[in-house]
Amino acid sequence: MMDFATRVHNHNYRLDPIIRSLLDTDFYKFLMHQFIWMLYPKVPVTFGLINRTKTVRLAEIIPEAVLRAQLDHARTLSFRENELIWLAGNRFYGRRDIFRPEYIEYLRSFRLPDYKLETIDGQYVLTFEGDWAEVTMWEIYALAIVSELRSRIAMATLDKFELDILYAQTKTKIWNKIKKLKSYPDMRLAEFGTRRRHGFLWQEWVTDAMANELGRSFVGTSNALLAFKHSFEAIGTNSHELPMVFACLAENDDQLKTAQYDVLAKWQEVYDGELLIILPDTFGMTQFLRDAPAWASKWTGMRMDSKEPVAAGEEMIAWYAMRGEDPRKKRAMFSDGLEVDLMIDLHQRFRGRIRESFGWGTMATNDFRGAHPRGLDSLDPISLVCKVTYANGRSAVKLSDNPAKTTGSSPAEIERYLRIFGREGVAEQPVIV
Amino acid sequence: MMDFATRVHNHNYRLDPIIRSLLDTDFYKFLMHQFIWMLYPKVPVTFGLINRTKTVRLAEIIPEAVLRAQLDHARTLSFRENELIWLAGNRFYGRRDIFRPEYIEYLRSFRLPDYKLETIDGQYVLTFEGDWAEVTMWEIYALAIVSELRSRIAMATLDKFELDILYAQTKTKIWNKIKKLKSYPDMRLAEFGTRRRHGFLWQEWVTDAMANELGRSFVGTSNALLAFKHSFEAIGTNSHELPMVFACLAENDDQLKTAQYDVLAKWQEVYDGELLIILPDTFGMTQFLRDAPAWASKWTGMRMDSKEPVAAGEEMIAWYAMRGEDPRKKRAMFSDGLEVDLMIDLHQRFRGRIRESFGWGTMATNDFRGAHPRGLDSLDPISLVCKVTYANGRSAVKLSDNPAKTTGSSPAEIERYLRIFGREGVAEQPVIV
Repeated sequence: MMDFATRVHNHNYRLDPIIRSLLDTDFYKFLMHQFIWMLYPKVPVTFGLINRTKTVRLAEIIPEAVLRAQLDHARTLSFRENELIWLAGNRFYGRRDIFRPEYIEYLRSFRLPDYKLETIDGQYVLTFEGDWAEVTMWEIYALAIVSELRSRIAMATLDKFELDILYAQTKTKIWNKIKKLKSYPDMRLAEFGTRRRHGFLWQEWVTDAMANELGRSFVGTSNALLAFKHSFEAIGTNSHELPMVFACLAENDDQLKTAQYDVLAKWQEVYDGELLIILPDTFGMTQFLRDAPAWASKWTGMRMDSKEPVAAGEEMIAWYAMRGEDPRKKRAMFSDGLEVDLMIDLHQRFRGRIRESFGWGTMATNDFRGAHPRGLDSLDPISLVCKVTYANGRSAVKLSDNPAKTTGSSPAEIERYLRIFGREGVAEQPVIV
Repeated sequence: MMDFATRVHNHNYRLDPIIRSLLDTDFYKFLMHQFIWMLYPKVPVTFGLINRTKTVRLAEIIPEAVLRAQLDHARTLSFRENELIWLAGNRFYGRRDIFRPEYIEYLRSFRLPDYKLETIDGQYVLTFEGDWAEVTMWEIYALAIVSELRSRIAMATLDKFELDILYAQTKTKIWNKIKKLKSYPDMRLAEFGTRRRHGFLWQEWVTDAMANELGRSFVGTSNALLAFKHSFEAIGTNSHELPMVFACLAENDDQLKTAQYDVLAKWQEVYDGELLIILPDTFGMTQFLRDAPAWASKWTGMRMDSKEPVAAGEEMIAWYAMRGEDPRKKRAMFSDGLEVDLMIDLHQRFRGRIRESFGWGTMATNDFRGAHPRGLDSLDPISLVCKVTYANGRSAVKLSDNPAKTTGSSPAEIERYLRIFGREGVAEQPVIV
């Protein structure tokens, strides 16, 4: 039967919003946001969206008005009552009451702040400037909007049949990956693909497929809206943003060196248990571990995001052993552009030696490579990031363990960071996403 | 928006009919049906459904009541006015008025006759007995019903996600086949897969995909309903049924030997032009050609349905040359369980030497091999046929060029046929569908 109302409604709509809920972001943003809001809400911070895939000239693909309409729509959103109740009442990592009532109250009136959008040399320069507690929340929404708009535009010229084939081929691809993963029932992995997703509905389909098929191997999703909607575990703790801003708060070189530990000391005042995950690679993992205070090895584990993962895992195991901790009780979360074969290799290598697990991102939620029905690459994922660029009046720096992932607008500051943190254990690797 | 009416209707339905229109059959049935109705309407004939894939015990898979409900539903159908107008007014093979007004009038009151359904050793014995002009029409409806019921039952235990993956994988398979075919724009092929289809809607999707993607390479479909609905060319002329029944009308061995030519002589009284396609393999192609009357080589071409196709094509070319005809002007339609690579090989071999074309059947409309999400083979195609088993009180025989495709219930009759027609040029080949 003809559903007249739906058909007419489809003619009427003015905007198909990408972000429809402020929960549609990575869960770690809420943990960091509460932390920032409690301790450093007014630090002046700038976030900037960076497309590391320079060959894709985003400003020539996505019309500015279309991008603005999506960003403006996100700014109209506020948290819904049921979303706030979920944040306040849900158990995260096995614990209730992670979010303080005062923070939930603050979220009730939260709106995304303004943005600045310019175009330079075919690329958008999208920046968010203001109080840290306000601008920090833009990160994932901005990434998802740009990523999804690019998909939509690439698909706008496909006819109904080509679209059918596109999704059939992509479902077949992801199904083959999931089938492979099913052979390793001891693996533990989470969906981490919000920021560079093909689209929300596709991310939801993939996450649902993982949950359905992988049983206990699927431990949850980084996406708070999917966790809320489907009662999945929300996964993720913190990101490079924290040590990067802390580094900008340092008043001298000595403080800069210890900023990476000071932020963890503060974190542990606010959170405990499973939330105590170290992200050691902001300024280089080797120097971080070598000079880390004794309490750092008591934490739950680490997330490995830029060092070649076998080397990172071995380094982690050796470090815990040297510090007198049993590595087999420590969490190792790998999350750097992972694909299935690599996850399986890492699982086989580290199984029983550490509590290895995986954050599977872009290759879960946006692997359309080879699926375009006319053979184009316009749906292949690109390397989009949204990073702190300035904080406290200083140019922010992330060195990472892979120079290809270094960020920072000031060569002098990068030079200074390199002088202070050194380059030990750093090695270039190709960045796909 | 919720379409309440559709949702409630979906709860209400009593039967999801497989055959919903009497046009949902192979177009050749109408050409043969008119021929039979004009000349031999009252010959007593029995058709029988045969599952050549004995390992699949159909009667243990499809409940009898379910099969009866579909067969009974088909018996309630009559031709609709717009269907009759199409048959009467449409151009087939470039010609109008192929169907006589009296035949169209006869179709107006046509209903499918009764059937007989028994079970022996896990297989259904489904037979249609009566006047030739009545029972002949059951052939394709019966095959499609059994084939599609088997698919439905195999899919009944799959959840929504598994069904999604099933079709995604199958779409990907057929898409890869169509992509291959697109590299050969001079190829000419038709969809021939009604009888062993996965389902009507899937056949329609595949045929539509072929029409969309293959351009001039797609010459049409054997399915009259799809041709009617989508303005595709209706393809097909005649089948083994005609010489098999004519052979049963023979009163002695001499008449039996010439029956295969007598039927063509009659056919040529009724039809001409592109409809003059010889199907030479009913009792063996080599003897057919060797002893054929002079006029046979004037016909438009042949359909090759059981001899190894390279041998069949070469034999055809040599025969035309020997008979003083230019093979390059003769149609060669290959139709024996073809798959893409074989069609491409045959195209490359015969291109420019004959007017080669292809009837792509089961591997287009029912290739679910390897696509079952739990790895079962319950959706793999099987070799179902519906053949004349008796006519004029005699056991009907088809020898074919492949002994694996021989049919006939009387060993003595088969022996007699073999004695009269010989075995020259016959070779065993595996039968998949």
